[in-house]
Amino acid sequence: MNQDQLKQLVGQKAVEFVKDGMYVGLGTGSTVKFMVDALGERVQKEHLNIVGVSTSERTAAQAKSLGIPMKSVDDVDHLDLTIDGADEISADFQGVKGGGAALLWEKIVAINTDKVMWIVDESKMVDQLGAFGLPVEVIPYGSKHVFDKMAARGYNPVFRKVDGEFVRTDSNNYLIDLHINPITDPHALAEDLIHMVGVVEHGLFLDMVNTVIVGHENGPEVIQARP
Amino acid sequence: MNQDQLKQLVGQKAVEFVKDGMYVGLGTGSTVKFMVDALGERVQKEHLNIVGVSTSERTAAQAKSLGIPMKSVDDVDHLDLTIDGADEISADFQGVKGGGAALLWEKIVAINTDKVMWIVDESKMVDQLGAFGLPVEVIPYGSKHVFDKMAARGYNPVFRKVDGEFVRTDSNNYLIDLHINPITDPHALAEDLIHMVGVVEHGLFLDMVNTVIVGHENGPEVIQARP
Repeated sequence: MNQDQLKQLVGQKAVEFVKDGMYVGLGTGSTVKFMVDALGERVQKEHLNIVGVSTSERTAAQAKSLGIPMKSVDDVDHLDLTIDGADEISADFQGVKGGGAALLWEKIVAINTDKVMWIVDESKMVDQLGAFGLPVEVIPYGSKHVFDKMAARGYNPVFRKVDGEFVRTDSNNYLIDLHINPITDPHALAEDLIHMVGVVEHGLFLDMVNTVIVGHENGPEVIQARP
Repeated sequence: MNQDQLKQLVGQKAVEFVKDGMYVGLGTGSTVKFMVDALGERVQKEHLNIVGVSTSERTAAQAKSLGIPMKSVDDVDHLDLTIDGADEISADFQGVKGGGAALLWEKIVAINTDKVMWIVDESKMVDQLGAFGLPVEVIPYGSKHVFDKMAARGYNPVFRKVDGEFVRTDSNNYLIDLHINPITDPHALAEDLIHMVGVVEHGLFLDMVNTVIVGHENGPEVIQARP
């Protein structure tokens, strides 16, 4: 089975958890893309009556093209389930997200959701976080000073750029990727980052995920991380 | 003496603290406007050699029109002095800022400055903070949920609007004004707000100001708040 087939099976498994009438947060990323395809199929074939809430312009466009009714997070009171990817999940089910540049909207959707599910291939399951790089969304104005403070703390910051240009998030901010490996105390790091003026949000998603679906060669594995 | 004359005298007093060669943060607001006028006069008449760093597009435009050389905060290593206004200053010299919608850039500039000076008329000096309303800058996406959480905590939030439209900051975010009077524990409130996902920054400027210049009927008073 190749990587895409693994991701496809994980995506199909995830949408089994979607029930009629749900408000469902739709994440961002390559595994999520397969999940949204599978969800679109259920909406079309089974006339599943759901509302999707998107975490990025990209996912919103894909979902709409598949006939999934979409709303902004501000037009719903709460979400029942959010299905998203993750860049790394530690043994105690803490996560790093933001490789797809959508961490801010992903976190906004996740914290307004009853149950959070992450879908990943097994390469994302790690002992300790840190190998992937931790994305931090920052206000462009003053970002040089935020960068310098991160460097002074030994966080090995790198501005995310494409073709020499700063990547912009959907909220028009910059991203700084931190290279701290391993992240021995994610909670302490999160506290430090959120207090830095100019930091909008960071990619540490702590104590948040309820269910993880991991893609293995022999099929998807469903793990209950938290009640 | 009318209010404008008081502000003008305070502004003139403040620029006496500007020395040749300094990098000077220039705040935003009606008192600051008089200060920037006075600073422009010193630059033109005394050929004072300084560089200004702005906290808003508005102040940048005014300063440039007066011949004050301006740089972005990202183009300087540090600032020597920042002169800004404040909406309220408590007896123990904690501040509320953001009435002019520029709190984020103001805080970014202030924390990268050796010495911070606030210039106000005496009506801004209060016993406890809270009468003015506390501005909080929030990401538009998900702001309804941030608002609801603030309301649930009894913070009496109000979205700042002009002619029915959301006010946008220079970073293109929304503002929510909180009405908590008095603010009995500003540090605890700051901690709560900065941990809310979607909050970019709040208008509590704590343990930050070094010098306060207060405009009285009988002239400006210079107060050393912190070394």
